[in-house]
Amino acid sequence: MKKTTEKNLMVFSGRAHPVLAEEVSALLGTPLVPTSAYEFANSEIYVRYEESVRGCDAFVIQSHTAPINEWIMEHLIMVDALKRASAKRITVVMPFYGYARQDKKHRGREPISARLVADLFKTAGADRLITVDLHADQVQGFFDGPVDHLMALPILADHIKEKYGNQPLAVVSPDAGRIKVAERWSARLGGAPLAFIHKSRRTDRPNETVANRVVGDVTGRLCVLVDDMIDTGGTIAKAADALMADGAAGVVIAATHAILSDPAVDRLKNCPATEVVVTNTLPLSPDQEFDKLTCLSIAPLVSRAIREVFEDGSVTSMFDGHA
Amino acid sequence: MKKTTEKNLMVFSGRAHPVLAEEVSALLGTPLVPTSAYEFANSEIYVRYEESVRGCDAFVIQSHTAPINEWIMEHLIMVDALKRASAKRITVVMPFYGYARQDKKHRGREPISARLVADLFKTAGADRLITVDLHADQVQGFFDGPVDHLMALPILADHIKEKYGNQPLAVVSPDAGRIKVAERWSARLGGAPLAFIHKSRRTDRPNETVANRVVGDVTGRLCVLVDDMIDTGGTIAKAADALMADGAAGVVIAATHAILSDPAVDRLKNCPATEVVVTNTLPLSPDQEFDKLTCLSIAPLVSRAIREVFEDGSVTSMFDGHA
Amino acid sequence: MKKTTEKNLMVFSGRAHPVLAEEVSALLGTPLVPTSAYEFANSEIYVRYEESVRGCDAFVIQSHTAPINEWIMEHLIMVDALKRASAKRITVVMPFYGYARQDKKHRGREPISARLVADLFKTAGADRLITVDLHADQVQGFFDGPVDHLMALPILADHIKEKYGNQPLAVVSPDAGRIKVAERWSARLGGAPLAFIHKSRRTDRPNETVANRVVGDVTGRLCVLVDDMIDTGGTIAKAADALMADGAAGVVIAATHAILSDPAVDRLKNCPATEVVVTNTLPLSPDQEFDKLTCLSIAPLVSRAIREVFEDGSVTSMFDGHA
Amino acid sequence: MKKTTEKNLMVFSGRAHPVLAEEVSALLGTPLVPTSAYEFANSEIYVRYEESVRGCDAFVIQSHTAPINEWIMEHLIMVDALKRASAKRITVVMPFYGYARQDKKHRGREPISARLVADLFKTAGADRLITVDLHADQVQGFFDGPVDHLMALPILADHIKEKYGNQPLAVVSPDAGRIKVAERWSARLGGAPLAFIHKSRRTDRPNETVANRVVGDVTGRLCVLVDDMIDTGGTIAKAADALMADGAAGVVIAATHAILSDPAVDRLKNCPATEVVVTNTLPLSPDQEFDKLTCLSIAPLVSRAIREVFEDGSVTSMFDGHA
Amino acid sequence: MKKTTEKNLMVFSGRAHPVLAEEVSALLGTPLVPTSAYEFANSEIYVRYEESVRGCDAFVIQSHTAPINEWIMEHLIMVDALKRASAKRITVVMPFYGYARQDKKHRGREPISARLVADLFKTAGADRLITVDLHADQVQGFFDGPVDHLMALPILADHIKEKYGNQPLAVVSPDAGRIKVAERWSARLGGAPLAFIHKSRRTDRPNETVANRVVGDVTGRLCVLVDDMIDTGGTIAKAADALMADGAAGVVIAATHAILSDPAVDRLKNCPATEVVVTNTLPLSPDQEFDKLTCLSIAPLVSRAIREVFEDGSVTSMFDGHA
Amino acid sequence: MKKTTEKNLMVFSGRAHPVLAEEVSALLGTPLVPTSAYEFANSEIYVRYEESVRGCDAFVIQSHTAPINEWIMEHLIMVDALKRASAKRITVVMPFYGYARQDKKHRGREPISARLVADLFKTAGADRLITVDLHADQVQGFFDGPVDHLMALPILADHIKEKYGNQPLAVVSPDAGRIKVAERWSARLGGAPLAFIHKSRRTDRPNETVANRVVGDVTGRLCVLVDDMIDTGGTIAKAADALMADGAAGVVIAATHAILSDPAVDRLKNCPATEVVVTNTLPLSPDQEFDKLTCLSIAPLVSRAIREVFEDGSVTSMFDGHA
Repeated sequence: MKKTTEKNLMVFSGRAHPVLAEEVSALLGTPLVPTSAYEFANSEIYVRYEESVRGCDAFVIQSHTAPINEWIMEHLIMVDALKRASAKRITVVMPFYGYARQDKKHRGREPISARLVADLFKTAGADRLITVDLHADQVQGFFDGPVDHLMALPILADHIKEKYGNQPLAVVSPDAGRIKVAERWSARLGGAPLAFIHKSRRTDRPNETVANRVVGDVTGRLCVLVDDMIDTGGTIAKAADALMADGAAGVVIAATHAILSDPAVDRLKNCPATEVVVTNTLPLSPDQEFDKLTCLSIAPLVSRAIREVFEDGSVTSMFDGHA
Repeated sequence: MKKTTEKNLMVFSGRAHPVLAEEVSALLGTPLVPTSAYEFANSEIYVRYEESVRGCDAFVIQSHTAPINEWIMEHLIMVDALKRASAKRITVVMPFYGYARQDKKHRGREPISARLVADLFKTAGADRLITVDLHADQVQGFFDGPVDHLMALPILADHIKEKYGNQPLAVVSPDAGRIKVAERWSARLGGAPLAFIHKSRRTDRPNETVANRVVGDVTGRLCVLVDDMIDTGGTIAKAADALMADGAAGVVIAATHAILSDPAVDRLKNCPATEVVVTNTLPLSPDQEFDKLTCLSIAPLVSRAIREVFEDGSVTSMFDGHA
Repeated sequence: MKKTTEKNLMVFSGRAHPVLAEEVSALLGTPLVPTSAYEFANSEIYVRYEESVRGCDAFVIQSHTAPINEWIMEHLIMVDALKRASAKRITVVMPFYGYARQDKKHRGREPISARLVADLFKTAGADRLITVDLHADQVQGFFDGPVDHLMALPILADHIKEKYGNQPLAVVSPDAGRIKVAERWSARLGGAPLAFIHKSRRTDRPNETVANRVVGDVTGRLCVLVDDMIDTGGTIAKAADALMADGAAGVVIAATHAILSDPAVDRLKNCPATEVVVTNTLPLSPDQEFDKLTCLSIAPLVSRAIREVFEDGSVTSMFDGHA
Repeated sequence: MKKTTEKNLMVFSGRAHPVLAEEVSALLGTPLVPTSAYEFANSEIYVRYEESVRGCDAFVIQSHTAPINEWIMEHLIMVDALKRASAKRITVVMPFYGYARQDKKHRGREPISARLVADLFKTAGADRLITVDLHADQVQGFFDGPVDHLMALPILADHIKEKYGNQPLAVVSPDAGRIKVAERWSARLGGAPLAFIHKSRRTDRPNETVANRVVGDVTGRLCVLVDDMIDTGGTIAKAADALMADGAAGVVIAATHAILSDPAVDRLKNCPATEVVVTNTLPLSPDQEFDKLTCLSIAPLVSRAIREVFEDGSVTSMFDGHA
Repeated sequence: MKKTTEKNLMVFSGRAHPVLAEEVSALLGTPLVPTSAYEFANSEIYVRYEESVRGCDAFVIQSHTAPINEWIMEHLIMVDALKRASAKRITVVMPFYGYARQDKKHRGREPISARLVADLFKTAGADRLITVDLHADQVQGFFDGPVDHLMALPILADHIKEKYGNQPLAVVSPDAGRIKVAERWSARLGGAPLAFIHKSRRTDRPNETVANRVVGDVTGRLCVLVDDMIDTGGTIAKAADALMADGAAGVVIAATHAILSDPAVDRLKNCPATEVVVTNTLPLSPDQEFDKLTCLSIAPLVSRAIREVFEDGSVTSMFDGHA
Repeated sequence: MKKTTEKNLMVFSGRAHPVLAEEVSALLGTPLVPTSAYEFANSEIYVRYEESVRGCDAFVIQSHTAPINEWIMEHLIMVDALKRASAKRITVVMPFYGYARQDKKHRGREPISARLVADLFKTAGADRLITVDLHADQVQGFFDGPVDHLMALPILADHIKEKYGNQPLAVVSPDAGRIKVAERWSARLGGAPLAFIHKSRRTDRPNETVANRVVGDVTGRLCVLVDDMIDTGGTIAKAADALMADGAAGVVIAATHAILSDPAVDRLKNCPATEVVVTNTLPLSPDQEFDKLTCLSIAPLVSRAIREVFEDGSVTSMFDGHA
């Protein structure tokens, strides 16, 4: 008994960031698979798909926003249900990769939670990962399988270039560990000069910093302060202060992941930056929105990657910043 | 270079139920290993042990209470940190095993979360499990390694026997799936007659039932209504009503795991049962305590199991109800 | 070099129950793949496929009947040969799952053979399982992959309903552990009342029971005594006796798996049940057939499941009892 | 809480060849661990250990004799039970390794059952293997872990040397595939000349041969016909005939594994060989014993290997033929 | 969103033996995928594919010639890159399987490198293997997956038959371990008589032998001296001498793998053999070519196997010597 | 049979850097285990241990220097031989971790060789890793098990402090990706100001750079140019030039791993740096030594780590820079 094989793309969404998933699904022209998902009274999560997923090429989207452990567990449970329901291939789409920052032991007797997360998804049944702007590129090597690591840089940088391209710019990294990213921005922005803020973070409480010194010359320039994520905003707000104190003409902030934990919004509102540009890899509550915040959509990038993966096309071009 | 080998017992506790862990540790005569554990602003969990754990025989206690996904992730992260810090053997102690109820696909396209949880712990680095009164005994087979499955029955039944042993008793299961447990109670209580409540649960929303009929004769008997856990209490409260309506002399409730999700406390307070006996496998908030609730400690059972495992003694005697 | 992909369904049968495999194959309209299989003089099994299986979607049928270890090993060897011959996907079809009863440690230092069997098939190369009426539903979680768990209930219950539907019925479980199944029967038979037999089994020799007491009211009703399997028949024959003694109008027995080990046939012949309805998940020797035995074919259910799996259709509807 | 670690040697035996296990255990001075093992009515095997095995260094002896699938499954189940009961290390002792002959695909679409067996034991929980005289040395590489491959050659050869050392000897391999073994015998017997029988086996039915031609000069010599095992004895009996026809002064046969399937005994009795020397790696039934059969015990070799493994001594010296 | 699935054959080559890969690719009619591969200054290898490989059916050809560790690592790295770039299936093609000779522990405390190599490729991501004439057939069982084991015998034997078929032939194995191969040659050459050279190799330095005695009658016959590989040529050259000394009419040598390490060329040139027939599973440098060497191409066999694997045809016929 | 357990430390060395292994072994006071290791004529590596390793706690030292693939394969083969010879625990000691730089896909369709290497060692049988100064800290997460990541910073920095501590210093990173390391140096050197060189590397040929601009103020300061490794020296030599051009008072270079591939020595000799301080994690040939090179020994750090691991002490203190 023979039969020509067909591939069947199905897109699933957890409950963490349904708006993004809907947008991706609309761009793909395929509706999200109807899914029941809720908590039992004791907070255990229950998931069930409302239609057959047998043999499908499954893409499961979940943004790892707070409460992050909740959404990671839901993501894992969704993968398990797909595996047991005979999905043919399961691609986990995590626009923001939870625990990516805990990618090494800063001190002894710590976990490497980013590796743990990769292994948990492998165990649950994930065949592939799609993610955006990892805190360190090396985290893609934590997963035992293909990882498509997308970059929001072109989306963010094109916005900056269009709006501020006629001014003298400098690209600034808020700390010593992210200058590699700033270098890529500099290339994209026509070779703008680089600077960074020399500070010490407490290794065990990364949100607290103790000193700030501008390394590099920013005098009279509009500083584009770039980072992969903004969590509590302390580092980046202090960096903006330091830049202005050092003679910068102005500051705009650009980051992919807008975690915006308390008191990030207040800090950003009150800091000298005139615009904060982010993407919607993470959902923003109304409380997290404010006047100078610009949020660009990551959905075109993610949906294009899904389409390429489904059609066995090349995602590589998206790495090279020519999107 | 030679050296006589020593075993070193170390006990660790997550943050879900520190009181139980402290009690277990006190009974073992070995303090809990000092551990830093907290959330970052975006709700990611951080864990670090404050002293060397290299080569130790580690027991990591965490009760999977609400918010359950939080505590499971913390448990997994603790195991990962132990593995990477060269603990020799890691035993996961889960007095209540989260997701144990999702132990099969009730309908198609569901996960089997109880198996997933077993696999996640294996992946994180767990060598062995200790747990108490699984929802179904078969769940012990989900873990690829030794599982010590402890039973609270002797603790609970001895309390009942002492207090009510001079009355004519019946042992009642609140539903058709738990009569096996009731049989063990009956044997322990000198062969008391059995009954059960025939009801239909909605398979997708296990907390809602639709009908109740007593099968078996309970007239004039004090009914010991037994279950492994009380979640929202709906099933068990309705069972108590049905028993009284059927001529029972009275009702006492006994269950190992006191989940007591809303509105369990109200239901139990208002139901005709005169006593509700549980253990402390899960923490009780002040809100969850009420007059007719009796909470017995599981710590002696758990600490004895840890000691036996450490000393390569036999835990089997604990299975046989002769503790 | 490109090529449109085709799926190719191939069905294989071990030597345990060729009649069932032939019937399944006929219903699918695809002949069994010619296979050499025999024992060497020292009882080692040899298997070889007589035509190319490269790239096929393989379904390997074997019923785990006595001598059960022989047939399980043959099943494993068949899977190994398929894996090494480049079958694309291997689905193990076990209408009766051997060792499913040893699904937990009843006492310490026992194996969990049902998990072992699942792992052995995974190791040999099985991607998926299809099975019928597991002793406990949880066993489906023992296999790390998709399991289609089929139910014979509709086949059996429709026979009963048609033949005895005009009489007052009761559904009776022969022991405390199977009442869940009886509940499903009750629902299918229009809410017939439930009863069960309260007995103690010796945990180490499950075929011997010591006491029987009917719990529930069966007076004047035709009792449908339901179970997943009939092994030596002691439990069910004694249950039939107890029901008649308790005032039942009559007894018919229904079970999926007719193991019928000695002296099951004698016991069933001599017991007060007027009909024994089973399926052919296991082969029946001429010695095992007797007048009041009705054997319904499971082949339509199994062949439909294979077709759905091959065509990526939904098997879920078969779970819901609406087949 | 600290404790000096102790190793605890425990020896277990399946039911295939208890006499050998008892002999090994007596030589080690440690009694076999009391074990319940029997079949249920449907031929499923049940195993339980009667005393605690937690933390022990376990050696599980089973000879893979007919019914071989039965004993392999029992062996696997015993290992599973040890794993779940927390044995520290599990060494599988298989004096005869079942399916070792199916160590490659002779033709397409065959299994490699010897690899499958190795993987099944690994899956069940085996850490190490001890075995004697594999059909091909390469099979030791099938197991992912340490294998101690013992040789019976010294035991057999010393017997031959002592009894026939004063005659002119030739060492003869009954087929082209075993001459490597004959070479080792030749070295042990002072460089006796080699010969072999050139025959064609049917690749699919290895017990049937079609032609025999002596290659090498055996005139006037006592031929020591050597092999790893004697199954139905056809090959070796015909080889003996061919040797006598070729002018040999006499024939004695030596082989490690006495499978002696029907009609081996008749063939050996009636062939011109004057003595058949074997070991007790497999049990001999009374039917399998006959006048010219000499059976030497392998127990001293096996018990010495177990002791060396337990005490971390070197088993290597046993490889070199100087035992 | 649905899509008919297409298979896409892509062939990749490492740098060890590009001529063979080019020939295979030409026969398949599909060009090699453009690949960047080079060493960094510290000898680390870098590999990158110049076009998308997503979803392809990949065949990666590398001959394990000296420097063998270099080429094995390159082969592994190529597989890793394919896995991470989402190739659908990866078949490793190793015309010569490196380390195949270290297929067992000859003495204690040795590695089994042939098993290690199989496991390394599995770990890197290989799904299948294609190889030619393994030193021992059992090595195919070292890989956990399908292995297509091709035979050069028909290619070599047809050449011999055509050229020397009218003379009285004998087939000779240069040592006791390869007579099985000689038997297959004998069958292919119409039942030519067999002989072998009895010698002792030093087990730790396999290239040095100590004694040579012809077993079997070669008088007046043209001896076809057959082996799987010629390394330093010492064994085979001495065998040729011994055959001539024993009255052979002449000697021709046939072997699949022409390793030809120093001083093989000198030995072969100076030995009495009149022709040395090999295949190009390994590259030959100009230094390794000499007058009496005939090199037949293995490319037709390898390309046919790749085509059959890609099209799910049967490779088995190639095993049977009817290519 | 009981026995007190002993641990037995055994240290093994590959052939890449015997001087370092000897020094480590001398500091531990335990001789290297005698080992046979050589290449066969076709460049396959052979390894055998000359004494029993059963039950030992094995540490296998190999520096991954050029020819790096050779030494990695030898390292893997050594681990395989230890596993098969029943070593109890195997710790791989790689003072320089080969392929650590290929820790991510810089562009699509590249391997992540650093992860591959970790997986290869795991597959071969490694339980743990000890390594020094990884190119990126995240690489420790590539290995599924404990990794002790040692830091040479204290050794190097103490040398610098002692010799140049009385001058005004600046710490300079030669590129944007290593400033994190420079920050640690700055902290160790009393808060010396930071600078870095802004340059573009070609992503596919990391040794070639295209532009150099000093970011940060170095005027009048002795610049300590720090890196984890010096390969061809191009980057660092140009950095030294740029610093002098920018007004630095002088330059000294400090790096852990002295790969010193051609033409590093010439570049370093000719660059304006007055001293180049490295460690002996890699062997230096006489050609690689030159006047201004200072080589400090890593052996005290490595031997202390081995001792701590063996004795279950804490290696963490070595992470904190207080060695």
